[in-house]
Amino acid sequence: IPLSRTPRCTCIKISDRSINPRSLEKLEVIPASQSCPRVEIIATMKKNGEKRCLNPDSKTIKNLVKAISKERSKRSP
Amino acid sequence: IPLSRTPRCTCIKISDRSINPRSLEKLEVIPASQSCPRVEIIATMKKNGEKRCLNPDSKTIKNLVKAISKERSKRSP
Repeated sequence: IPLSRTPRCTCIKISDRSINPRSLEKLEVIPASQSCPRVEIIATMKKNGEKRCLNPDSKTIKNLVKAISKERSKRSP
Repeated sequence: IPLSRTPRCTCIKISDRSINPRSLEKLEVIPASQSCPRVEIIATMKKNGEKRCLNPDSKTIKNLVKAISKERSKRSP
């Protein structure tokens, strides 16, 4: 990943690790723009507010969105 | 939608309108939690920073995530 060519992007390091949706505080999706030529996906963790950049090309994001929705329905009465 | 029972949620009004991914500054996905029993999807618009809550049960969110990814690949060399 040619990070040096994208100085205005938020993400420096991108993680391919999967994330437990239960430990997720929020997920931000930032579309590609003039200041950063790639989509950025930033996960904020509940525990310590840690932010992790996820790879938008991996299945992680799709699975995460799916998992979050399932989580929601489970908690509904 | 029983909004009055969920006082700590961020969203008051939920829009079912679709959003042009090009006019999107960022998209936030907040999982259900003890403070808010439903997933919240908040779109921030580029133009005026306006925030719009989207319905997580509609196809809008899935299409949006898909559209954002496509947008990215189009801009890649």
